[in-house]
Amino acid sequence: MRIAMVGSGALGLYYGALLQRGGNDVCFLLRRDYDAIRRDGLRVHSIHGDFYLPSVAGFRHSGEIGVVDLVVVGLKTWSNDRYHELVGPLVGPATMILTLQNGLGNEERLAELFGAHRLHGGVAYLCANRGEPGTVHHLGAGRIVLGALLAENADRAESLAELFRSVGVPCHGVDDIMRARWEKLVWNIPFNGLCALMQRSVGELLASPKVTETIRGIMAEVIAAANAQGLREPIPEVYAEEMIAFTRAMDPTYRPSMQLDRMEGRPLELEALLAKPLMAGKARGLALPLITALYALLDLS
Amino acid sequence: MRIAMVGSGALGLYYGALLQRGGNDVCFLLRRDYDAIRRDGLRVHSIHGDFYLPSVAGFRHSGEIGVVDLVVVGLKTWSNDRYHELVGPLVGPATMILTLQNGLGNEERLAELFGAHRLHGGVAYLCANRGEPGTVHHLGAGRIVLGALLAENADRAESLAELFRSVGVPCHGVDDIMRARWEKLVWNIPFNGLCALMQRSVGELLASPKVTETIRGIMAEVIAAANAQGLREPIPEVYAEEMIAFTRAMDPTYRPSMQLDRMEGRPLELEALLAKPLMAGKARGLALPLITALYALLDLS
Repeated sequence: MRIAMVGSGALGLYYGALLQRGGNDVCFLLRRDYDAIRRDGLRVHSIHGDFYLPSVAGFRHSGEIGVVDLVVVGLKTWSNDRYHELVGPLVGPATMILTLQNGLGNEERLAELFGAHRLHGGVAYLCANRGEPGTVHHLGAGRIVLGALLAENADRAESLAELFRSVGVPCHGVDDIMRARWEKLVWNIPFNGLCALMQRSVGELLASPKVTETIRGIMAEVIAAANAQGLREPIPEVYAEEMIAFTRAMDPTYRPSMQLDRMEGRPLELEALLAKPLMAGKARGLALPLITALYALLDLS
Repeated sequence: MRIAMVGSGALGLYYGALLQRGGNDVCFLLRRDYDAIRRDGLRVHSIHGDFYLPSVAGFRHSGEIGVVDLVVVGLKTWSNDRYHELVGPLVGPATMILTLQNGLGNEERLAELFGAHRLHGGVAYLCANRGEPGTVHHLGAGRIVLGALLAENADRAESLAELFRSVGVPCHGVDDIMRARWEKLVWNIPFNGLCALMQRSVGELLASPKVTETIRGIMAEVIAAANAQGLREPIPEVYAEEMIAFTRAMDPTYRPSMQLDRMEGRPLELEALLAKPLMAGKARGLALPLITALYALLDLS
């Protein structure tokens, strides 16, 4: 299968490397890592075992790649206004698009540009950070939950899930990708938000019982906002405890992407991760005081 | 009148200087500024006009001061476990004590040690910061609201208010000092809390409409907690807008004391300003999610 990875941050490099190792023809759209990867290939340091891809097809522009079978979008959401430029040249009549980006609004925007029939959304539970150019560190987890934007394409979503499973990624298809997005937000909003705001790792936050209560409070608001959207099946309240347990099992020094973005002076994914979920919840009449405050403070910082 | 200022931070130095200039015999208990003030006196840079007191009675220990008519307590509340040592030697049979400290619990603790009959509480709306040793900067406001801890001592509270008015401090006595304390908390909790958390001045916070909404949300929680205490007269909701207008009229670069404490690595007044009000509100069944989160994050930071 010919696959383009658009947005080669930690997520794009890691899953792209697995897809290539599994026998697919993977093209990486690169920026920071272009020179290093063209010269030296791509090194993956993974809790499941390190591996090295000496020859990697890296490109600077999507036009050099051309049409592919599958576009995997791993861009930071603040680059979404470049979808046309970055994804457009890769799309032919039969191309599928899978966005693994965080937050809300990505599938819808891509569907507007390229058609809903080819759109799939996935939620990646991946702890990974980029190392020096040409290196990615897989620190934990890695499961993907994915689904088609249109219910009639469930079989295609299942074939994409099978593709990921075939290269060693735990992956399953779901009927309701919007529920999966909101489930991820139950983690993303408190942990990306508070780690970025406080410049503390997940373990440093969870070491404080008071902050853990605040995390629970934020999660409860996200679950309430999710369930107000008319999901086919509501997210149970206990999901918050599951996410806290999941996080306690992580490397406590793990820094979510928004914390790294802030540390390194990059823009933050506030629109997709905070503003859109807030707007969706408030449209259903919820006050969401903690998420509102978190967004306000991150927007200031 | 013989007056001891216990805790000579910006507040103690400023009001003590006015009391001395007005003809009272003022003794300052000093620590950081002891050498400078003994050598060079005390300089007040004030929006109402600068003045200089060349000769100031500064002491290192309360025992050197002995019994006074009035003890004005301006200690940081994290020094309250030193009340016995710092205030005790100043108290004779007729001594009055006025605490101008922030937050809850100060009058009660002093009353336990020295008797409720001598206890008065005051709330100072003062923008002042210490400068170099021997210098205090009065940047704005300065009004004091004070009252007796026991209702039967209202006349004494009125005489204290008259003392402050006689030296140029806008001051009035109130029946319900607890209501006045909570009114001050409506300002203190959001502004001390958020300025310290974000390391931003009051004007930097109010420049963000989103953060201003968060401030309003926190103020609404403080007002709810206050009114759940059975105040003789509830604090109206509109008080929050008055406090925001009051703050917009300040020097926008003003940094509340907790922000300075954090900048300079000192302990924060979390117990008196956040933990005790939270406990009081939760005891009345309120959830107070924003204050709870603010306390959790300040406690981490």
